[in-house]
Parts: sequence; C-alpha cells; structure tokens
Amino acid sequence: MSDATARTATAEPKLTLARWAALVAPSSFQDETLHSTQPGMISFGLGDPDPALFPAQLLGRLAAELLESDRYALQYGPQPQALKAGIVEAMAGRGVRCSERQIILTGGAQQGLSLLARVLLDQGGQALTEALLYPDLQPLLATYQPDLLTVGSDLETGMEVDQVEARLRAGARPAFIYAVADGHNPLGVSMSADKRARLAGLARRYGVPVIEDDVYGFLQYEPEYPPPLRALDDEWVFYVGSFSKILAPALRVGWIVAPEALVAKLTIAKQAADLDVATFSQRVVGRYLQAGQLAAHLALIRDEYRLRRDVMLRALARHFPAGARWVRPTSGVFIWVELPPQFDTAALLPRAIKEAGVIFIPGQLFCVADAPAARRSLRLNFSNCPPERIEQGIARLGDLLRQAA
Amino acid sequence: MSDATARTATAEPKLTLARWAALVAPSSFQDETLHSTQPGMISFGLGDPDPALFPAQLLGRLAAELLESDRYALQYGPQPQALKAGIVEAMAGRGVRCSERQIILTGGAQQGLSLLARVLLDQGGQALTEALLYPDLQPLLATYQPDLLTVGSDLETGMEVDQVEARLRAGARPAFIYAVADGHNPLGVSMSADKRARLAGLARRYGVPVIEDDVYGFLQYEPEYPPPLRALDDEWVFYVGSFSKILAPALRVGWIVAPEALVAKLTIAKQAADLDVATFSQRVVGRYLQAGQLAAHLALIRDEYRLRRDVMLRALARHFPAGARWVRPTSGVFIWVELPPQFDTAALLPRAIKEAGVIFIPGQLFCVADAPAARRSLRLNFSNCPPERIEQGIARLGDLLRQAA
Repeated sequence: MSDATARTATAEPKLTLARWAALVAPSSFQDETLHSTQPGMISFGLGDPDPALFPAQLLGRLAAELLESDRYALQYGPQPQALKAGIVEAMAGRGVRCSERQIILTGGAQQGLSLLARVLLDQGGQALTEALLYPDLQPLLATYQPDLLTVGSDLETGMEVDQVEARLRAGARPAFIYAVADGHNPLGVSMSADKRARLAGLARRYGVPVIEDDVYGFLQYEPEYPPPLRALDDEWVFYVGSFSKILAPALRVGWIVAPEALVAKLTIAKQAADLDVATFSQRVVGRYLQAGQLAAHLALIRDEYRLRRDVMLRALARHFPAGARWVRPTSGVFIWVELPPQFDTAALLPRAIKEAGVIFIPGQLFCVADAPAARRSLRLNFSNCPPERIEQGIARLGDLLRQAA
Repeated sequence: MSDATARTATAEPKLTLARWAALVAPSSFQDETLHSTQPGMISFGLGDPDPALFPAQLLGRLAAELLESDRYALQYGPQPQALKAGIVEAMAGRGVRCSERQIILTGGAQQGLSLLARVLLDQGGQALTEALLYPDLQPLLATYQPDLLTVGSDLETGMEVDQVEARLRAGARPAFIYAVADGHNPLGVSMSADKRARLAGLARRYGVPVIEDDVYGFLQYEPEYPPPLRALDDEWVFYVGSFSKILAPALRVGWIVAPEALVAKLTIAKQAADLDVATFSQRVVGRYLQAGQLAAHLALIRDEYRLRRDVMLRALARHFPAGARWVRPTSGVFIWVELPPQFDTAALLPRAIKEAGVIFIPGQLFCVADAPAARRSLRLNFSNCPPERIEQGIARLGDLLRQAA
C-alpha cells in the first residue's frame, strides 16, 4: 500500500459506538458447541424443556381458532387482560397474591430482567449478584458496564445472605440484588425458608430491591416447598416469571409482578423497547389459560422431570468417580456436580463431545467473580433428554472421567 | 400527623430509580382517547393497517400446520434462516442488495430502533431528528436523556437536508441521524431522490450513520419511486423494516439490515434485551414467505390503500375549509393537513370526538422542537377505515371545522 493510499484510508471516518458496545468482547464460549445437533449426541448442556412435552397440537388448534374467529388478534391493542388474569391465578398457586395492575407482560423472562435493569440501573451503577450467575445475565449487565458486587452460594441453602447483609451494612446500596430462590441456574439449589425471610427483610430494611428470577420456580418436585420471595414482600421484591420452561420457549411470553408505581415506569421502558402492545403469542397463551389447561400440564411435566432427575441422580451415583459431590435439587432442571480437585471441566468438554458424545456446561462459564470450585464443576440439565438417554449419557461421561482421572 | 409519625415516614427507605426513569414524565396525551372503540366512532388516529386485509385464515392454517409437523417450532433455536432469506428477497424488491448475514430479526421496527439506539447512543449523547417525529421514538429517546438536535421538514420533499449539512459542517457529530425516506410519520411525505443522495453522502462524508425507518416503505402507490437510503450506502445507512404494516402488527416481526460488524454488536444487545432466539411468529412468517404469498398480498393492500388515499384526498377537497393545505402522499398511510392559522387542533380534538365522532391526532403531539404550523395541523390515517367511512368521517370533520372557524 502506498503512502497516499494509507493516508486516504486513515482519513476514512470510523463509526462511533456507545461506550459499552465499543468495549464489549465477544463471548469466549462457542455457542455452536452447545447447540450441536450432531446425531447421537446427548445434550445436558442447555436449560431446554423437552419438546416432546409441549402441548403443540393444542396450541396450534387454539392459534388457528383464534385467527378464524377474531382478526383483531393480529392487530395492535393493549396487553390481553385474559392472560393477566390467568397469571394472577397461577401466581396464587405459588402462594403469591397480586393484582392484574401489578403485572406487565414481557417477551420472556430475559425481557423482564432487561426492563427491570433499565428502570433501576444507571450506566456504571452498582448491582449485586452471586458469583455463579445465569449466563444470559452477563450480556445484559455488560450493556451497563456496572460495578458488580458478588456474593457466594451454598450448594444446600443457596445465596450467602450473610454476605449480602455484610455488604449492605458496610454501606453498599446496589440498584438491585439479583436472586433465584428456586431451581437456581446453574446450581439447581433452592433457597432455604430462613434465607428467603432474611433476604426479603434486608431488602426492606436497606431499601434495596430484589429482582427475583423465578423462571424455574413452577417446576417443584417435592410435596412441600416455601413460597417465592415475592410472597414475603410485595414492595421490595420484583418478580420475573415466564412460560418458556412450563409451556414453550418460542412463544416468548413472560411477566413481571411489581408495585403499580414501578409498572408505570416499566411500561415506558417496554414501549421504548418494542411497543407495549399485545402479541399474537400472548393471545394464544391467554386462550390456553382460559381453557384451564395449565394445572394439568404442570402436573404432567413435574412428574416427568422428577422422574428424569431421579434417573440422573441414580446414574451419577453409579457412574461418577468417588469424591464427586452433588445435591439433589427440589426444583428446576439442573444438577451441579463438583468433581475432585484434579479435574478441569472446560478442558474436559471437547473430549466429552468428541469421545463420549455428551454435552455439558463447564462451571467456569457461569463465573462473574472468583468461585474456586467452579473450574472442576459442571452443570447438567435433566429436563431435555428422555430417561434412557440420561442413563446412557451419564454412563459415558463416567467412563471418560475414569480415563481422565 | 404527629412529629413522631413524620419521622418514621421519613425514615422509610425509598426506591432509587435509574436517572432517566426518575425524571421521565408520563405522556400528557391520553392513549385511551386514541384507542376509543366507541361504536360509530371513525378513527383516523393511529397508523393501523385494516384487519379486514390481514391474511388471518392463511396465517392460522400455517401456524397449525407448523405445530402439527414440527414441535421444535416451539423450542429455543437460532433465528430462522428461511425468514432471513425471504427478507433478502423482499429487500431486493425495494432495490436493496443485502445478505442474510447483514440481517438481524427483531420484535418489530420499534425493537429495531431500540437496539440501534442501544449500540450507538450513550446516556446523554447527541442524536439528530426532525422536529416532527414518530411519537413512539419519544419514550425511546427519553430513556437516554439525549441532547437532541432537530431539523425542519418540507411537506413536498421531506427532511431539510440543508439543515442537517449545516449542523455537521458546524462540527456536530450526533450518534445517528434518524430519517424516514418513505411514507413519513406524521407528514406522509417521501424524500426526493436528490435529498436521499445528499443525505447518504453526508453520512459517509462526516461518519455519522443514518437510521432509516422504513416501516411504511413497502406501501408505494405510484409506478415509479426512488429506492430507500440503504440502496445508496451499505455502510452508513442502517435499515429498519417490519411486517407490522404489510402483514400484521401482533406478529411482532421486524428486521434490521446493517453491516456485519454492527450485527455482531446488535446481537449482543438483542440477547441482552430478550435473548436472541427464534420466535414462533418468526417461524410462521418464514413459512408465509416460503409459500410465496407476500408479493400478491402487497399488491392487494397497495391497491386498496391507494384507493382509500384517493377517497380521502377527494373528501378533503370537498369538505375542508379554504386555506387548508395538504400534499398527496405517494407512500405510507398518512395525510398531514395544515389548517388556516385560527385553528388549534389539540383544542379541537375533544369536540371532534364528542360532536363529530371522529378521531385524528393533533400536530402538536409529534413535536420534539418548535414547529410553528404544528399547532394548526392534524395527521389523518387512511389505511384503517373502509372508503365509505373515510368519506363520511372527513365530511363530519369538515362540518365541525366550519362551525369552529
């Protein structure tokens, strides 16, 4: 290239991006790996529900009937009250009292989290999470370049609320505390009743709201379980729910339960994001709830996923090496396994895919702060595969671990 | 209230919002007014397409067939390539060459605008728009508290590109220029070919990108029309499209065409906003395009909306007072009418609703900066009502204007 050309090239204007967008680095993890659909591959990777359990034909029939009878189902309009009423009823089943006016419908739980972050968090502001975090919260937080405070997690009782309290007592006032009380992602743990009460109390005492991500909370496997944080405080806990795990993800229907004053702000954020109007999917899900189908469907998928959890737990006990630890989850779709210290699960994954035909997610992927055992841990999903594949996949992984040890 | 109570009340912690959310004022305009569904009311208010023209039964059948044959249509997955391929083809019909890798699917045009703002605009940054602006851009901009530069509009040739050039020459480097080249909202105007070329040239020369909102651009009523800005520059024009006006709004399917490097950033913003996954609606629209239905449907709605435009233009000439001005739109769904100086359209609206049973939008609602004639102007939509109702509504409005003069 001649000097003249170089000068011209330098003079070319360059696009200026928003600061976060200029700084953000692409994820080091290959999404394609996790989405591998290679035949024979057994995937414990993603948090996916099993499509075999979707009420697909019924939803198709409801969609066709809706469009046959009401062209306005495709028009602009306010968010459907029928769906909000159905959500109020579903929330009552979780032990939460709320009104339709406290609900804003979203395009899934991620949009719920995104809208709450938008109204609470300033660019560069402070937020508090666990060190092991739901991975899709990471790009969301990246758009704010926040000052992230983190706390640890206990594998049996959940978030270390003592550490939350210490932070607040020392004067920290994050824009919010992100918490998962049931079916934690990635740990599978459900927060003890005692910790729930203490966390809700801290939120109120210090005036720091909790964003409760309850995307797995409807998937309970034991007869008795404590209600979500939102049941303990209706002013300082902002609840995020979704139909993705209990009905079907591609519908993209979720909701927030928040105080009415906050719903007014969230409505502006929603309008800014993608207009605050009814979607076709919301109307289909509204019809599904009106038809009274949800309770029976929930019972069905709880029974099936409980069975799969138990199959995976038995297979782990049978095939995984001595010194591996895991906790029996009471809700959600994940089992977190901590291997003995010599293992490095990120290094193991390519071999697991190639030699064992099994996908899992290495613990490291969930770390937003130091979490010493994450390097030798892995997250396993038990909802996506039928039981016989679970047994087979864990056996193959166990073989690999014996070779790798 | 006793002093003790007052102290207790003061000590109660108060929720801290993000700065924009604390500052934002609720819209002064009653949305309910515009959404009035009172029987007999004739609405020229919103930019709605006519539900009678939605291919509702076909979409219902495609949805049911899709769910009958493929349960994975409800599962998480990447954005459907079939839909992107269909969009590439539709864009070619608008004179735009692009590849599937330059497309990111969105939940409608508003999400397209929102994602572009997210990756380009810093909190408190600078943006350039016309003084008369698409109203739903206002809450979007409000979330950034931007320094807004505005330019005027010519009713026959569109955005005052001279004023844009003067701003840039004086040193302004806004994060983006928001422009509507076809079927402007609220003015109905399409930008002259000369202005398109000059605006695209300015974007490139000064390194300031143009966000082209083309939500009405597929609704063309004349045999010849210039291509969108994106056809003139594939590096500095970021294009936003949508199926809301040409297929059905509640599907919430739109798209962005942008350079690949920007698509990578937009993908992170999309993932942060609501996960970057396929929606059921995207898959239904993908099937619709694959079935080759779009071209015939576009021809149908263009013919029908052209007819309605002409009916409204004739009715305006017949019933509106001397001194009222309007321009014949060549695309889109709006006619902008400037009344003689004695009229105040915001004051007139309640009477129009009550006495004439007609809804329109007062010009003032679109102002983000001083626009002297807006106070006596109104925006009329011609796509939502059948022709006989258009004639009737304009006649009633004309009567009211004679009384009010």
